[in-house]
Amino acid sequence: MTTELVTNIGQLITNSPGVDTRPGSERLGILTDAAILIEDGQIAWLGAASAAPAHALAADTVTDAVGACIIPGFVDSHSHIIFGGDRSAEFEARMSGQKYSAGGIRSTVAATRAASDEELRARTRGFLGEMLAQGTTTVEIKSGYGLSLADEARLVRLAAEVTSEVTFLGAHVVPAEFSGRADEYVDLVVGDMLDACSPHARWIDVFCETGAFTPVQSRRILVAGAARGLGVRVHASQLGPGDGVMLAVELDAASVDHCTYLTEDDVQALAGSNTVATLLPGVEFSTRQPYPSARRLIDAGATVALASDCNPGSSFTSSLPFCIAVAVRDMGMTPAEAVWAATAGGAAALRRTDVGRVIVGARADLAQLTADSYLHLAYRPGVPLIRRVWKDGVAVSVSA
Amino acid sequence: MTTELVTNIGQLITNSPGVDTRPGSERLGILTDAAILIEDGQIAWLGAASAAPAHALAADTVTDAVGACIIPGFVDSHSHIIFGGDRSAEFEARMSGQKYSAGGIRSTVAATRAASDEELRARTRGFLGEMLAQGTTTVEIKSGYGLSLADEARLVRLAAEVTSEVTFLGAHVVPAEFSGRADEYVDLVVGDMLDACSPHARWIDVFCETGAFTPVQSRRILVAGAARGLGVRVHASQLGPGDGVMLAVELDAASVDHCTYLTEDDVQALAGSNTVATLLPGVEFSTRQPYPSARRLIDAGATVALASDCNPGSSFTSSLPFCIAVAVRDMGMTPAEAVWAATAGGAAALRRTDVGRVIVGARADLAQLTADSYLHLAYRPGVPLIRRVWKDGVAVSVSA
Ligand SMILES: [Zn+2]
Ligand SMILES: [Zn+2]
Repeated sequence: MTTELVTNIGQLITNSPGVDTRPGSERLGILTDAAILIEDGQIAWLGAASAAPAHALAADTVTDAVGACIIPGFVDSHSHIIFGGDRSAEFEARMSGQKYSAGGIRSTVAATRAASDEELRARTRGFLGEMLAQGTTTVEIKSGYGLSLADEARLVRLAAEVTSEVTFLGAHVVPAEFSGRADEYVDLVVGDMLDACSPHARWIDVFCETGAFTPVQSRRILVAGAARGLGVRVHASQLGPGDGVMLAVELDAASVDHCTYLTEDDVQALAGSNTVATLLPGVEFSTRQPYPSARRLIDAGATVALASDCNPGSSFTSSLPFCIAVAVRDMGMTPAEAVWAATAGGAAALRRTDVGRVIVGARADLAQLTADSYLHLAYRPGVPLIRRVWKDGVAVSVSA
Repeated sequence: MTTELVTNIGQLITNSPGVDTRPGSERLGILTDAAILIEDGQIAWLGAASAAPAHALAADTVTDAVGACIIPGFVDSHSHIIFGGDRSAEFEARMSGQKYSAGGIRSTVAATRAASDEELRARTRGFLGEMLAQGTTTVEIKSGYGLSLADEARLVRLAAEVTSEVTFLGAHVVPAEFSGRADEYVDLVVGDMLDACSPHARWIDVFCETGAFTPVQSRRILVAGAARGLGVRVHASQLGPGDGVMLAVELDAASVDHCTYLTEDDVQALAGSNTVATLLPGVEFSTRQPYPSARRLIDAGATVALASDCNPGSSFTSSLPFCIAVAVRDMGMTPAEAVWAATAGGAAALRRTDVGRVIVGARADLAQLTADSYLHLAYRPGVPLIRRVWKDGVAVSVSA
C-alpha cells in the first residue's frame, strides 16, 4: 500500500457542504491552501496544508500542486461510447443545411454489428483515454447500437470490461427488422434480451419519445428491468414534451436525461423527487436545438447533472469542461453550479457516494487544473485545462 | 539541414485551390493518402504518398501519420496575450447575472503595469505554448494594456521577442489618466508613443467604437501609423453599428475585426475590398452577445477569418478548434469554411502567403489531428484533437 500526499493545492473543490460558505459557491465546499492524503486508492485525509499530520508528511510520494485548483474527477453519467463507424458526413450535411438521407442511429447499428470485439474494445478504450485526459474518472456506458439479442449482449459484456456503470439500452430505437412491429421488439427486449444482458448491467434505460418508444412500452421495459434488480434511467423530452419525465419520477429513476422540453408539472415533480435531471449541452450544441433552462430546474429545487451524451449522432463531444462552458453560457447555470453538476451531480445521477466528492473514504478520483480556480473551466472555453488526473489514486500526467 | 518525410496522411488540407474540387470543400484543396517533405523548415514537396520521389523517401526522418488528417497550423490573427492578472471574478459575476463594479480593461491595465518583464514574458510564453498544443503556429499579439508611453513600448518590445506579428494598440481605450481628454491621449498615441512603439510593431490598430475612439480619432491614429509603414487593422462594430468598417476598407486595412453589427453597406464594402472580416466567436460566447452571420459575409463575397481574440475580459479562449465549432453552430459557416477561415483566412488577415497553406515553399507549420477528417474539429467540440504540431518544421508531440 503506497501513500501520496498532494499538497500546495491553491483551491480544492470538495463538494462537501459546510466546508466553506461563501455565497454562490457554498455547494462546492472550497478549501484553500489544502492538501490531500491518498492511501490505497482512497482519500485518507484532507485539510489545510499547514495542518497535515505526521503520517501524511511521511507519505511515500509528495506531489506539489503548485497552487493549482483540484476538483473531484468528472462523473459522466450518460455516454454511448461503444459503437462502430462515425457520422461525420451526416454532421457536415446537417450543419451545412443539406439533406442527408442515409444517416441516423441505424447506420451506427450497422457499423457496430459489423465491428469485431477487438475493434469495439479499441474504440471504447480510446474514448475512455480521451475522457480521462479531460478529467473524467467515472463513465457510464450504454448499449443500444446492437438491437439484437446477440449484439446487445455483446455490447453490455464489452462495456462491463471497462466500467461498472453499464446501462442496457436495448430500447434505444426500434430496429429496422422490427419496423411496424414495435411491440414485438419490446417483447424481445423484456424477454430473452433482458435475460442475456441484465447480468452485465447495473441500469436499464429507454428512449421514451415520439418516434422511439411510447410511455406504455417504456413503462413495460423499465418495470421489467427493475424486476431484475436494474436501476432505472430514462431518455425523455429531448424533441418535445412527453410523459417520460413523470414516468421516471414515478419509477424512482436515478436520472431522467435530456429534459429539453419540460412542463411546469415535470419541473415540480422532479423537484419533489430523488430523480436527477441530467442535461446534455453537447446535444443542443451539435443539433442546433434550443437549450433547456437549468436555472428553472435549480430554482425549483431539482438536482441537475451535466453529462456528455458522447455518441456519433447528436453529441460527439467527450469533454465535460466544454459542457460546463456551454451550460453557463446557454442554460443559465453559474460556474459553481455547472462544476458541481458535472461532478457531484453526475454521482447523484448514478446514486454513487464514493465519487464526485473529495471526502475521507471517497475514491481518490481527482483532476488538477492548469489554473488556480474552477472558474476557468467556464472562463476559458475549449482550452485543455487538465494537467493531471488521479483515478483510484493512480496519477496520470496530461500536460506539462 | 535535416529533412523529414511525413507520410500516410489520410487527409491533407492544403488550402490550395484546384487541388481537389469536391463541392463544398473546394477551398480546402484536399489530398488523400498524401505525403509531405519538410526541408529546412519549409515544405519542399507534397503529393500522393505513392508518388514520393527518391530524395523524399531518403529523408533523415520518416514519420507515419497513421492515416490521420493534417491541416496547416492555425493562424490566430487577433490576440491580446500580453497582460497581467485575470478577470475571473468579473466573468463569474457577469455569467451569474450579478453586478461587478471593479472590472473592465482598466483593471487589466493596472495589473499589467504592475507586472515585471519576467512575469509578462512567462505568461505570454505560457499562452503561446497552450496555443501551439492546440495547433496554432502563428499568433498576432497586440499591445493595449499599457496605455502609457513606457508601458506600451514595453509591451510591443516584449511581444516582438516571441512573434513577428506585433500590433501597436495604444488606442485600446482612453486610460483613466486622460479621462475627458481623449484628444490629448490621441496626441500622445500618434506622437511620442508611436515613435517609441513603431520600431517593434508591424501593425497599428484602434478600437473604433462608441465609448472608445471616434471615427475621426481612429482615422488620425491609423493614418499616422500607416505613415510610419505600419499595416492597418481595426476593431469595429463589436457593440453596435458604426463607421469603423467603412474606415477600414477606405484605408485598405488588412483586417477589420469583430464585425458583429454590420450594415448592408458594410458587407458590400468588405466584399469589394482586400480587407478581411475577422470574426471572433469567443467574444460572443463569453459575453452572451448575439453572433454575427459569417454566412451573410461569405455569400456576399467577403473574405472571412476566425481568430481567438484571446484576452482576459471578453474572450479568454486560446482555442481555434473551439472557435471553429462555435462558428459552425452559430455563425452559419460550414465546417470547411470555418477550417479555412482559421488557417488561410487568418493568413489573409495578416497578408501572409507563407503560412495558412500547405504548398511548396510555405513554412512547414502543420497540425496533425487525432482524427481522419477536418470535420471532427466541428463535430467533436471541446475535445483536444491535436496530436502533433510542426512549427517551422520542428515537431512537437501533443498527445499519444
Ligand atoms: Zn443518450
Ligand atoms: Zn481584440
